[in-house]
Amino acid sequence: MRNLGVLDFAGGTVVEVASGVSGLVAAFVVGKRLKVGYEWNIPHHMPNVLFGGGLLWFGWSGFNAGGAMGANGVAVLALATTQIAGATGMIGWALVEWIHRRQITVFGAVSGIISALVAITPAAGYVSTVSALLIGFIAEGVCYLAVSILKAKLGYDDALDVFGIHGIGGTWGTIATGIFADLSLNPQGKNGWINGGGFEPILLQLLAVLATYIFAGMMTFLILKGIALITPLRASDDEQVNGLDLTQHREKAYPDFELSENVYI
Amino acid sequence: MRNLGVLDFAGGTVVEVASGVSGLVAAFVVGKRLKVGYEWNIPHHMPNVLFGGGLLWFGWSGFNAGGAMGANGVAVLALATTQIAGATGMIGWALVEWIHRRQITVFGAVSGIISALVAITPAAGYVSTVSALLIGFIAEGVCYLAVSILKAKLGYDDALDVFGIHGIGGTWGTIATGIFADLSLNPQGKNGWINGGGFEPILLQLLAVLATYIFAGMMTFLILKGIALITPLRASDDEQVNGLDLTQHREKAYPDFELSENVYI
Amino acid sequence: MRNLGVLDFAGGTVVEVASGVSGLVAAFVVGKRLKVGYEWNIPHHMPNVLFGGGLLWFGWSGFNAGGAMGANGVAVLALATTQIAGATGMIGWALVEWIHRRQITVFGAVSGIISALVAITPAAGYVSTVSALLIGFIAEGVCYLAVSILKAKLGYDDALDVFGIHGIGGTWGTIATGIFADLSLNPQGKNGWINGGGFEPILLQLLAVLATYIFAGMMTFLILKGIALITPLRASDDEQVNGLDLTQHREKAYPDFELSENVYI
Repeated sequence: MRNLGVLDFAGGTVVEVASGVSGLVAAFVVGKRLKVGYEWNIPHHMPNVLFGGGLLWFGWSGFNAGGAMGANGVAVLALATTQIAGATGMIGWALVEWIHRRQITVFGAVSGIISALVAITPAAGYVSTVSALLIGFIAEGVCYLAVSILKAKLGYDDALDVFGIHGIGGTWGTIATGIFADLSLNPQGKNGWINGGGFEPILLQLLAVLATYIFAGMMTFLILKGIALITPLRASDDEQVNGLDLTQHREKAYPDFELSENVYI
Repeated sequence: MRNLGVLDFAGGTVVEVASGVSGLVAAFVVGKRLKVGYEWNIPHHMPNVLFGGGLLWFGWSGFNAGGAMGANGVAVLALATTQIAGATGMIGWALVEWIHRRQITVFGAVSGIISALVAITPAAGYVSTVSALLIGFIAEGVCYLAVSILKAKLGYDDALDVFGIHGIGGTWGTIATGIFADLSLNPQGKNGWINGGGFEPILLQLLAVLATYIFAGMMTFLILKGIALITPLRASDDEQVNGLDLTQHREKAYPDFELSENVYI
Repeated sequence: MRNLGVLDFAGGTVVEVASGVSGLVAAFVVGKRLKVGYEWNIPHHMPNVLFGGGLLWFGWSGFNAGGAMGANGVAVLALATTQIAGATGMIGWALVEWIHRRQITVFGAVSGIISALVAITPAAGYVSTVSALLIGFIAEGVCYLAVSILKAKLGYDDALDVFGIHGIGGTWGTIATGIFADLSLNPQGKNGWINGGGFEPILLQLLAVLATYIFAGMMTFLILKGIALITPLRASDDEQVNGLDLTQHREKAYPDFELSENVYI
């Protein structure tokens, strides 16, 4: 890809798009979960969603700035665009959620952050901070649509929204790199559409996305079918009703929590 | 301020004192919460207090050392004073709590850490490590008094103790910078009182604190009164009884936690 | 020790072996806990085990790479060996647990990570990445044996497995440094057994381990006996039944958790 001149600063295509597409294929091959006694797809512990999202954001700083392969100006640019995109994604999702459902949730705020971090990953060291703001804001918009409309329409079951957030966010980010790239900020980059580079950079980035969809999708399908010859991919209905923690790992997330509570009181 | 020669290494006045005073004004304007079924002002999940406190401490290392604006000796000094102050604050609070209430709590230990980190923020790159020890130890003392006596006396409701910890800790830290600053450690600083600088540095720091109290206090009051023209500042009694999570965000912190527990068991 | 030519890159002997032996002695001197209403030695909150383990792993990167005392190639080597060992330990423990008990647990995965991080600590800046892989893999094996067999046989009560993980892992890691050290990677190191250094490096490392066992064990015993003259080391049976949180700290980990849940619902 790099030989063709495709831009991917910190792995937005190879990590985000590939995992998103693989997740979607796996969701279709494995099929939906049974609903078991609680609302589908809502995490049971929102403070941990926030902890996990915060740690991800922090780690993403190293992931993206590290793409510069040195302690230099491009690393600083990648760090700055990453922070700005993340913050814009959070505010943007809250706004969209408010307009659509008159509701601002912690779960949505974290989803917005991750959407934008995914989208800025291929662009981080190639675009300006103002472009990062636009990339992050649009990222949460398209990911919100993917998660709240596309998912319901296609009817797949994706507990972590790997396709809706990482696949769609990564797709947007890879294309956006062809739109917003700025050669004056990073001599190893190129000029995107808005900086006079014409449509070629966008078409090249689209080609990279398409190739990733086909390769990751096909390989995941083949790997899953291979695994299915050896062991079932899907937990049985009984196992799902009893919970995967107990049936697959014989482990409880909160062993005797209520009991220990009583002991303490 | 900087033109007057006020010292504020990493934002102890502009961040800590300003937020503390703004929080106090807001607490008075909005008024107290209703008490709803659990003890007032005790966090419901102590392990998360510890997690949050630890992450804050870690982040504070970057915040204070970053105030040196470079990877140099002053950054190392700021990092060292920050760690020493934090540790001293934790031990100090435990000691004071033991003397006062024969009790050493996790909640107190974290409060002591934050008090001291707040206080060392304006001083971090200007003072010696021995001074940091004193600043941290005195910080937890004055913050303990603010939280356990001043708050009860003034009768405001400050769930996170923004005034008691950040406002009072920042006030002490800003003054302490005028007492303990050491020109030999940082040529961009000055000599404080103990290093032969006389009373002028202390008076200048006091002036900065006073100006921040007046500016932050007045502006917060005006902003809140402006917001109140558009939307009520205070959740209604009904909303408070039902909880802000549900009424303001339509979100549960632990959706169907007990139910899912039963499913797993 | 360093004068004798003992290698300990980031404190595997002084931190890990010493704490492990001290923990074992303390476990014998203080004696076993009463069993109080929940399974012995299983953490009540598995997600927090995972959070804590992840933060430890992250912190260990700084701890071990920092042992190079500079931003240089040895720091990069120490960082790489630390990550590789941690990952190998996690996979290895899962494998061993599966073979032994047909079970793969989160608790085991985190135990494997810590075992391997402990073992790589004295070796981090002296060994190759391939050696790190072997050190991490063997570490989780010997620690698994210590935790699941040795502990039951010796009959001590070690809630955090300080001896089984830190003591045994540190012992293996200190010896392994004498086996795998490579002078060509770090001129301040030496060649271990596999690199033509003969048995002397192994014997020296064994001497260091032995000295640490004797010194840490004896000193801990004396210190505990000294403390016991002033205050009892052991919580009374009544206090244990009511929980140490309440009786020693007068603090609840989850104050009115169920009550507040009801309020929110």
